[in-house]
Amino acid sequence: MSNFFELIKIDDFINLALKHLNQKISEESVHITESLDRIIAKDIYSDVDLPGFSRSVMDGYAVIAKDTYGASANLPIFLECVGEIKMGEKANQSISLGQCVKIATGGMLPKNANAVLMVEDTEKLSNNEIEVSQAVAEKENIVFKGEDLEKGELLLKKGYSVRPQDIGALAGIGMTEIPVYKKVKVAVFSTGDELIDPEREPALGEIRDINSYSISAFAKKSQALVDMCGIVKDDKEALLKALQSKIGSYDVILLSGGSSVGTRDLTIDVLETLEKGSILAHGIAIKPGKPTILSVIQKSLIIGLPGHPASSIVVFRNVIQPLLRALSGKKADLDYFQNKTIKAKLSRNIVSDKGRDEYFRVYVKKEGKEFIANPILGKSSLITTLVKANGLLKCPLGLEGMSKNDSVDIEVLS
Amino acid sequence: MSNFFELIKIDDFINLALKHLNQKISEESVHITESLDRIIAKDIYSDVDLPGFSRSVMDGYAVIAKDTYGASANLPIFLECVGEIKMGEKANQSISLGQCVKIATGGMLPKNANAVLMVEDTEKLSNNEIEVSQAVAEKENIVFKGEDLEKGELLLKKGYSVRPQDIGALAGIGMTEIPVYKKVKVAVFSTGDELIDPEREPALGEIRDINSYSISAFAKKSQALVDMCGIVKDDKEALLKALQSKIGSYDVILLSGGSSVGTRDLTIDVLETLEKGSILAHGIAIKPGKPTILSVIQKSLIIGLPGHPASSIVVFRNVIQPLLRALSGKKADLDYFQNKTIKAKLSRNIVSDKGRDEYFRVYVKKEGKEFIANPILGKSSLITTLVKANGLLKCPLGLEGMSKNDSVDIEVLS
Repeated sequence: MSNFFELIKIDDFINLALKHLNQKISEESVHITESLDRIIAKDIYSDVDLPGFSRSVMDGYAVIAKDTYGASANLPIFLECVGEIKMGEKANQSISLGQCVKIATGGMLPKNANAVLMVEDTEKLSNNEIEVSQAVAEKENIVFKGEDLEKGELLLKKGYSVRPQDIGALAGIGMTEIPVYKKVKVAVFSTGDELIDPEREPALGEIRDINSYSISAFAKKSQALVDMCGIVKDDKEALLKALQSKIGSYDVILLSGGSSVGTRDLTIDVLETLEKGSILAHGIAIKPGKPTILSVIQKSLIIGLPGHPASSIVVFRNVIQPLLRALSGKKADLDYFQNKTIKAKLSRNIVSDKGRDEYFRVYVKKEGKEFIANPILGKSSLITTLVKANGLLKCPLGLEGMSKNDSVDIEVLS
Repeated sequence: MSNFFELIKIDDFINLALKHLNQKISEESVHITESLDRIIAKDIYSDVDLPGFSRSVMDGYAVIAKDTYGASANLPIFLECVGEIKMGEKANQSISLGQCVKIATGGMLPKNANAVLMVEDTEKLSNNEIEVSQAVAEKENIVFKGEDLEKGELLLKKGYSVRPQDIGALAGIGMTEIPVYKKVKVAVFSTGDELIDPEREPALGEIRDINSYSISAFAKKSQALVDMCGIVKDDKEALLKALQSKIGSYDVILLSGGSSVGTRDLTIDVLETLEKGSILAHGIAIKPGKPTILSVIQKSLIIGLPGHPASSIVVFRNVIQPLLRALSGKKADLDYFQNKTIKAKLSRNIVSDKGRDEYFRVYVKKEGKEFIANPILGKSSLITTLVKANGLLKCPLGLEGMSKNDSVDIEVLS
């Protein structure tokens, strides 16, 4: 069985996973100071006007605009100053034609005023008279009640990822408990008899666990709640027990490891033992990363990643990351920049596998105003090929390669 | 004094700050699982070979390559199988001409073997004989000892920001305590008599604090350690006390608020009281954001941000963020993508202030294969202009505007 792979396309793999999960994402409430990068779970409307009163955006004088019409340096007009607005206090004053009130930026506009004259366009003649050398139009230098956000207006949509400026707006309307989707819970195991914990000194034949460290960090970058569950030996009972302890309580379980056919067979055997028919796919049309296993048991998505470090990272970026995004509740259509790519010029010809989406690790360097993408050659078992890389270049299924000087889209790996 | 602004350029402002800080960034050690996005404080060399022994990257048979030369499906050759390599164990076997050893992906290569035959190119005839239908070249399907990283080789440079794949490589060489620079410590105050905490219900004339929320979140996004210190009233004693409690123990103190000349004057007065001559600049050639104050006291950088929410965010992104990056120890030349921009087509003419770098908030939308940037008009006192925006467009000092359909660089605000 394990030698036979029906390769399915990346998108089909992702859709198959989501279809079988049929997810209902749970919600929770977090304090505004914890809401950065969280996904909004309910449309958020303002229940107040922002600002709650009309305010000045300049230091100057609140006036009735038509009083100033025609004023110039040569032909100034004069206004009676009937008081001053104290910051943070209700403007109790009201002005009549020919009158003004001193006001600072942020101050509340007094009754009847419909414009603010900038202090630079005035001269104080006495405590109760100013000279005006410039006209001001109606509504000038004022933010009106509700102009930033009106009571009942939509501020943030469900499925939206919270940015710093959104936190500012939420604070502005006094919304300090934010309804968000729960973070996606991910468990990461490494499997393989040859693996040891990085803290240990390897004996000959042993190798330190790389994948559960890199994959867990990638999952954290995707805003998941990650549990690093350590190394499981190539042993049916051990793997069964490890999976049973997480199935049902984690959204996603990643088995990172098993570069050998033996480990892959064991993973398939264990998943079939846990639930017959639970394996939905094994084998994706991606290079590197073909031997990826997909299974769903009790609403937990279980994915067996290939063992070679570079392969598991390519699969993470192109298969797991979109899945985590979908499971997070984030709406793709609210994020035009979700896949940040840059245009670069390819430094050499590359030959690719026509039957799969092939991902090349590249190092992009700015030369003058141009980005040049240099493919990094090296086995997918070498983690340093990805340390040297700052981008991934996809050569899509169907293409046999790309040519030197081609303009290509690079997925940024920074 | 407060009405007179000598505007200095953004770069000069940043350089002035860094020159007066003359910073020496402290180091600390963090566990590998906490090292994501931290800045490496010492060049990291490997003190081991990775891998520590030559390994197979395929399931198959370890062979002496020349034994297989000339083998084909029509003219197979035969090899004696003298054993199997157990995963995670030292390969005690040694092979001679005409012999092979069964090996799995990741298994240690036995003595004398110099290639691995893929299992697909063989047929097992008995427990101690295989048929080989394909030749394999020397070094094929092997990762050699030290091929990923050699003992003594540089892995990560000082000033480098740790990515998930780097964490994988650090795990691979057993480096679990990582020398990093300490996070930049930032204190954020809001100032202004009109401000109240967002949890409170504002009376007429009062307004909820927006800036310390948005600015703190931006600083967190920049990997700083942020302390939100609340609201300070426009009162000399209160502001003096607030600043004294933080100066010396924070790298950066942000005073966000004070949209009025009164607050600005007060801030300047207090800083001059704390240390005569400590104000290095007030006024940057940026729009919005001109009235920004720069001061250095006892190695603390104190910046008075403009009070309008959009202004303070534009100043944060273009002045504070580069400063935080410099103070973090991150080397700009190690990050080609530090300012992620995308090319977009401008949807309309814009007129800008020739004397300043003017930043327009824009909403970028994908139309077909093209990004279209739509300027968002609205006062800089409106936080929702930035909620609606997903990008910033800079119209540099010296330009009077840009034209519809111009190809422009948009700084991504997502």
